[in-house]
Amino acid sequence: MARHDVPGDRPAEQPPDAGRDRRELIRLAAVELFARHGYRGTTVRAIAERAGVDPALVMYHYGSKENVFSTVIRETMRAEELLPELPRLLDEVADTDSADDPAADGTCPGGPGSRLLRGFLTRWEDAATRPSLLVVFRSAMEHPEASQLFREVAGGELLLPLARRIPAPDPELRAALVASLLVGLVTGRYVVPIEPLAGMELDTVVGLYGPYADDMLLGRLGGSPPPGRPGA
Amino acid sequence: MARHDVPGDRPAEQPPDAGRDRRELIRLAAVELFARHGYRGTTVRAIAERAGVDPALVMYHYGSKENVFSTVIRETMRAEELLPELPRLLDEVADTDSADDPAADGTCPGGPGSRLLRGFLTRWEDAATRPSLLVVFRSAMEHPEASQLFREVAGGELLLPLARRIPAPDPELRAALVASLLVGLVTGRYVVPIEPLAGMELDTVVGLYGPYADDMLLGRLGGSPPPGRPGA
Repeated sequence: MARHDVPGDRPAEQPPDAGRDRRELIRLAAVELFARHGYRGTTVRAIAERAGVDPALVMYHYGSKENVFSTVIRETMRAEELLPELPRLLDEVADTDSADDPAADGTCPGGPGSRLLRGFLTRWEDAATRPSLLVVFRSAMEHPEASQLFREVAGGELLLPLARRIPAPDPELRAALVASLLVGLVTGRYVVPIEPLAGMELDTVVGLYGPYADDMLLGRLGGSPPPGRPGA
Repeated sequence: MARHDVPGDRPAEQPPDAGRDRRELIRLAAVELFARHGYRGTTVRAIAERAGVDPALVMYHYGSKENVFSTVIRETMRAEELLPELPRLLDEVADTDSADDPAADGTCPGGPGSRLLRGFLTRWEDAATRPSLLVVFRSAMEHPEASQLFREVAGGELLLPLARRIPAPDPELRAALVASLLVGLVTGRYVVPIEPLAGMELDTVVGLYGPYADDMLLGRLGGSPPPGRPGA
């Protein structure tokens, strides 16, 4: 909004990467506004104001509000951004023989499902990442076009690579189960926070949900608890 | 929008419950529009048009768009509407000794957690109920005031009564875990539908998620799979 930020003011002085910087500035402003006001409640004019640029520059870089939005979703959901350790975690999933292995000796705090959960939750815990995750999450619930985009990106970047590595029957179903567990957990902890989920330590959360994630990834689906399992 | 539906046209002919009928007509129109356009995308004028009444009548019955909205949430989430069998299901939860009981002999398809899930999902399967559930769900994600209202109503109507009946340690945590499982499942099946969750038979879904719900309600929380549990 500062006068000297209006584009075209000092074109001769712009360093070579000014365009990229402005584009990123606009994206960050959009994340902030989408997070606060939703997709429908955010206008190109508001994004421009927040970024301190002219609305024409938003249109120049993105073409439309829809495109700003899909860029936010795509960049937030890029696996290497969202979970840089995903390839390693997927290797762990692929290398695990059965759900019994990771925890059977009592020394390991959880299997690959637990570690996947921990990786995603760590990103949600991060104040720098959470706003764009919230945007993606809320908008995917809010309107069908965003749902479709979310489904495509999440499917291609996360679910499909995961399903391909699961060494157990019904891998797509298992990937979907783990995804739904994570969605429910993220909702109760960050989106519509309820206690005690919202206030618990990350380790406690992983300890609670991890065994279910491990079981969904590699256990016996729909299995009733085996006889002798300790009750409450 | 039909001319004869405008209020005040035939005041002398109105039957005694015409006011209640109009109020309900407005609520149903609001559910439809909130479901399609979200809270922000819906105006009092649009609700009035859809209901075939004057906007003044919407204001007369509800006072504001916010009030129409909170009525929709409250009426949708009323336990006796949402899950008339809740008292019976809660009795089952309270009467269960441990998670082993329901399924240990292999004759019963699931414990009280499974039956709670089935009850809620049955409402989501119903084409008459799903639109208002979607409104509640989406708006709770969309903006903080709706989240707050959702948390209050869901907490008071469903989570608290459930927690009170759970005969196991950490009942509030267990109620929150089951709620988050249900939220994730509903999201993957109805809100941002992904396959194979969206296309599966209800029985299959209950068979898959039920054991986790039973375990969350009554099992050993954070328990690692016991040795000897069959792997995939």
